[in-house]
Amino acid sequence: MSTPSLTDRGFQFGDGLFETIRVDRGEIQQFDLHWQRLKHGAETLGIRMPARRMLEMRCKSLAKPSTAEGESAIPAVSALKLQVTRGDTIGGYAAPESLPANVYVSIRPVALNPVFWQDGVSVRWCQQTVAIQPVLAGLKHCNRLEQVLARREWQHEYQEGLMCDTDGYVVEGTATNLFACIDGVWKTPLLDRCGVAGTMRQQILNWFEASQLPYEECRLRKADIEGASALFLSNAMIGVWPVTGLEGARFAVDSTTHTLVEQFAPTLRKL
Amino acid sequence: MSTPSLTDRGFQFGDGLFETIRVDRGEIQQFDLHWQRLKHGAETLGIRMPARRMLEMRCKSLAKPSTAEGESAIPAVSALKLQVTRGDTIGGYAAPESLPANVYVSIRPVALNPVFWQDGVSVRWCQQTVAIQPVLAGLKHCNRLEQVLARREWQHEYQEGLMCDTDGYVVEGTATNLFACIDGVWKTPLLDRCGVAGTMRQQILNWFEASQLPYEECRLRKADIEGASALFLSNAMIGVWPVTGLEGARFAVDSTTHTLVEQFAPTLRKL
Repeated sequence: MSTPSLTDRGFQFGDGLFETIRVDRGEIQQFDLHWQRLKHGAETLGIRMPARRMLEMRCKSLAKPSTAEGESAIPAVSALKLQVTRGDTIGGYAAPESLPANVYVSIRPVALNPVFWQDGVSVRWCQQTVAIQPVLAGLKHCNRLEQVLARREWQHEYQEGLMCDTDGYVVEGTATNLFACIDGVWKTPLLDRCGVAGTMRQQILNWFEASQLPYEECRLRKADIEGASALFLSNAMIGVWPVTGLEGARFAVDSTTHTLVEQFAPTLRKL
Repeated sequence: MSTPSLTDRGFQFGDGLFETIRVDRGEIQQFDLHWQRLKHGAETLGIRMPARRMLEMRCKSLAKPSTAEGESAIPAVSALKLQVTRGDTIGGYAAPESLPANVYVSIRPVALNPVFWQDGVSVRWCQQTVAIQPVLAGLKHCNRLEQVLARREWQHEYQEGLMCDTDGYVVEGTATNLFACIDGVWKTPLLDRCGVAGTMRQQILNWFEASQLPYEECRLRKADIEGASALFLSNAMIGVWPVTGLEGARFAVDSTTHTLVEQFAPTLRKL
């Protein structure tokens, strides 16, 4: 299946899920974490997910095509987008339980700016809030209007915008998760009511656990973030970006953030 | 443009709006109300809406095609779906301000069951809530996962399910608006925090105003609905359906509801 039809429920209602997977020199990164999130999302939404093996094979063949030029034709870093929708129906919201899902896979080369790993990024607070809907919390579903509207609030002045929920608690960046070092403990917003549970966020939490560093998922206010000693953003494509500016306030890059940048940056960075 | 591409933002993020317009014997109904809602939605989301004339022409040519068979080939009632998305982009949530919107139009014949106008429908309360997001309130946007999940709560036992917001206030049916006669006043949920402001709902409010009947848009609890003397649902396709059953409780069809059914049902009903 190459392109969706007008009856695809992803197109009609945002009735689907997606994953943006990093591909380093043709090698898919962390497929298992992406698969786990996708599978959990499909279970929550009641989408009939195809078998893991089929999805993985489609992703792999797209990530590392057999080309006449060989390895040199493969970009250093690519973003592989895997989108799964509930399927095709005509009419309203009702869908049969047995409806087969639609799977779409695409890939594009990505130019990541090494300066951001080195010098950090500058971010802002968004006016646009994230609504509280516990049923959808954590999922990377295709209802993303809030993130789209938040991203409209700036052009190129910042690298990311931070969003709060409708109760005023900090949730995430528009396309990243947020970590803040507060009183020596790394804290990240609890995503039980809204937000996307990033695969890189999960890797970082696992790393904190393995490193026996104190960390916490909890409710955080803007003032907690503004009072932090260090901040960073994460997602599957960038790995970790230190935050060095937040609307004029400056933050230093601490040693833990520096270690995480090195640990999770694409192969590109390490070459 | 016939079908969306993988880069259509409606497909990627539900970044668009839609209208379901009733077509009676080839004649588009209430185009102006649909256009007004669509235009308001596009302004709110920052989507570059094409000119009304272009949209109306596309809808009209689809609604009443020149066929060799003539008028007899045109269905009694059809649903014309007009979907407008922000356009195509590659990558993340960012989109240029100048991005031209994509417009998709499709039509399908609809078999409306006359029994529901006569005898009323049976409805249930949904567990699935509607999140509170004032920025999106009233719009018929393409982020409809909550309605999709609500509709999964029953099969054919009911004709519609009623939804509350995350604060417990009644909002609407999954695909309809709700009116309740309480102490002699027709009340419908205020849609300032969530919900879809239906074009039929608007026509009914206008009718109440013109008829000098007391009515109110306000916050309503489940108990208010359960204690009402009469209930009805509305949308552009069905017009008005009396609600005669709500999870076992029975409701009579009062004279105002009867009048509204006759007033707003498709031509089919009146033939």
